[in-house]
Amino acid sequence: MAELVEDLIGERILISPGRAGRPYDFGSTVAERKAKCPFCPGREGQTPPEVYAVRPAGESDSGGWQLRVTPNLYPAVAATSSGNAFGIHEVIIETPRHDTRLADLSELELELVLAAWQDRFRAARKDDRLKYGLVFKNQGPNAGASLEHPHSQFIALPFVPKRIEAEARSFREGTYQARVRSEMDDLDHLVLTSRRLAAVTPRGSRFSYELWVMPKTPEARFEDSADAVLEETAVLLKRVLQALDKLLKRPDYHLLVHTAPFEEDRYWWRIELFPRLNRVAGFEWATGIFLNQVAPREATKAWREALKG
Amino acid sequence: MAELVEDLIGERILISPGRAGRPYDFGSTVAERKAKCPFCPGREGQTPPEVYAVRPAGESDSGGWQLRVTPNLYPAVAATSSGNAFGIHEVIIETPRHDTRLADLSELELELVLAAWQDRFRAARKDDRLKYGLVFKNQGPNAGASLEHPHSQFIALPFVPKRIEAEARSFREGTYQARVRSEMDDLDHLVLTSRRLAAVTPRGSRFSYELWVMPKTPEARFEDSADAVLEETAVLLKRVLQALDKLLKRPDYHLLVHTAPFEEDRYWWRIELFPRLNRVAGFEWATGIFLNQVAPREATKAWREALKG
Repeated sequence: MAELVEDLIGERILISPGRAGRPYDFGSTVAERKAKCPFCPGREGQTPPEVYAVRPAGESDSGGWQLRVTPNLYPAVAATSSGNAFGIHEVIIETPRHDTRLADLSELELELVLAAWQDRFRAARKDDRLKYGLVFKNQGPNAGASLEHPHSQFIALPFVPKRIEAEARSFREGTYQARVRSEMDDLDHLVLTSRRLAAVTPRGSRFSYELWVMPKTPEARFEDSADAVLEETAVLLKRVLQALDKLLKRPDYHLLVHTAPFEEDRYWWRIELFPRLNRVAGFEWATGIFLNQVAPREATKAWREALKG
Repeated sequence: MAELVEDLIGERILISPGRAGRPYDFGSTVAERKAKCPFCPGREGQTPPEVYAVRPAGESDSGGWQLRVTPNLYPAVAATSSGNAFGIHEVIIETPRHDTRLADLSELELELVLAAWQDRFRAARKDDRLKYGLVFKNQGPNAGASLEHPHSQFIALPFVPKRIEAEARSFREGTYQARVRSEMDDLDHLVLTSRRLAAVTPRGSRFSYELWVMPKTPEARFEDSADAVLEETAVLLKRVLQALDKLLKRPDYHLLVHTAPFEEDRYWWRIELFPRLNRVAGFEWATGIFLNQVAPREATKAWREALKG
């Protein structure tokens, strides 16, 4: 059903009519949303059979889980390779608790989420038809979420998107590293560090308060990170998510996990985080140039202030 | 104050802190909005001195106008060429009437708007520091408008954005023309024609119900269109705007006027129109690949049906 087309300038577009049927629950009250939430425990039958779960005991698709991953019932890509829009589209249900946000999970719970993300990248890499994977989280209706229950998504594609190919090229040419290193060395951009990780506001921020969490030295793949790095990532990510919720009063936001394309060894993985504030509009759609109203150096100050408390 | 930066892959971003201070009136009631609207007649002093107006009689910045253009008080670009984010940013106040939409203007009024757009392109082309101009309209708060009073915007820049440069290249290589011609010849994509103009739903639609209004044969510059073409454009544009309001119950939308870069002679001008429906989200921000839930051939049917009435 999904179809991959190109526009005049060779940019790819996914025509996915199947997405249109998906439930949208933000029009209702919280009680109504919880009463029919397909991601809540006890409603495992409302999602396709799980492909990954953290469950101390019990059968697949039964209750008692701490985290579940299932194919997206309304996929943006087609699960069969008969058409040109083949791929994988999964939902990571991050917690059984409906009424929470990623920032409110414990560090241990957050680590389970990160480990699930790793697992899905690794699983997709085993299918040699697939070339690229992305984890993304749309928090809240303004960020494009259609369901309230905490979840993120995984999409794998049989090609590398142009934008990502350009990033890999930037790394091969040394630009990526030079830029990020200069930001890590600059107090106008460095927000926070831990032993192996840093959080920076990039000079080229498309979005207000855009923050990148990444290893201090280049590591190509998020999914190959050792447990110790994953643990440290969970700790640092919880701190920045809490700071974001404080800074902008629990805003809607996007979180992106950028890791190397499957057949690419040279890259620097990062988790990109930004609140949904800018109204991306006509100018951006026409020109591809983003307008950002908050200078990154001002964002750095705001992040640092929010992290204090 | 504005600053032009590049991201890792050389995409430009405009850091415009001055935009943050602009009024946002959709939080208030209609009566409150009208009581303080800086674009309503009698409040000409609240905008910078006009650079263009349609006024049967009377002085600049006095009342009695049918249309006014003033520099944007909260520009995305800097009016002086001291920094690297030099440019022009203007507001076209399309009508003195606060409570209306572009679709509800008469054909003659709409032609005044189109003529104003032409004038601003022509005026910017006289400044040889400027290389590119864009007219865009963000209708409604979800489309990024901060004020309700009907208005569009003009931005001119001292460089050609990459995306536009790619379109001009596509034209030089013949791809642009081949694609659009094949769409004009295909009843799955052709929505409406008049003597010299056509409206099509492009195969590479990034947005649901995306529609392009353009001459049937390539003309590089919208602003060089003869009066007869402008008149015909007004007639056709009114029809499609009314159809859009009927199809999706007066949705928020974007309208873009794509014309040749100032030093480029080979292009095919078009007016791009699309409602603000898709929630562009994490996947698009990460990959640059747009998800569109409405296949263009289905959009064609819907447009045709709406145009019938």
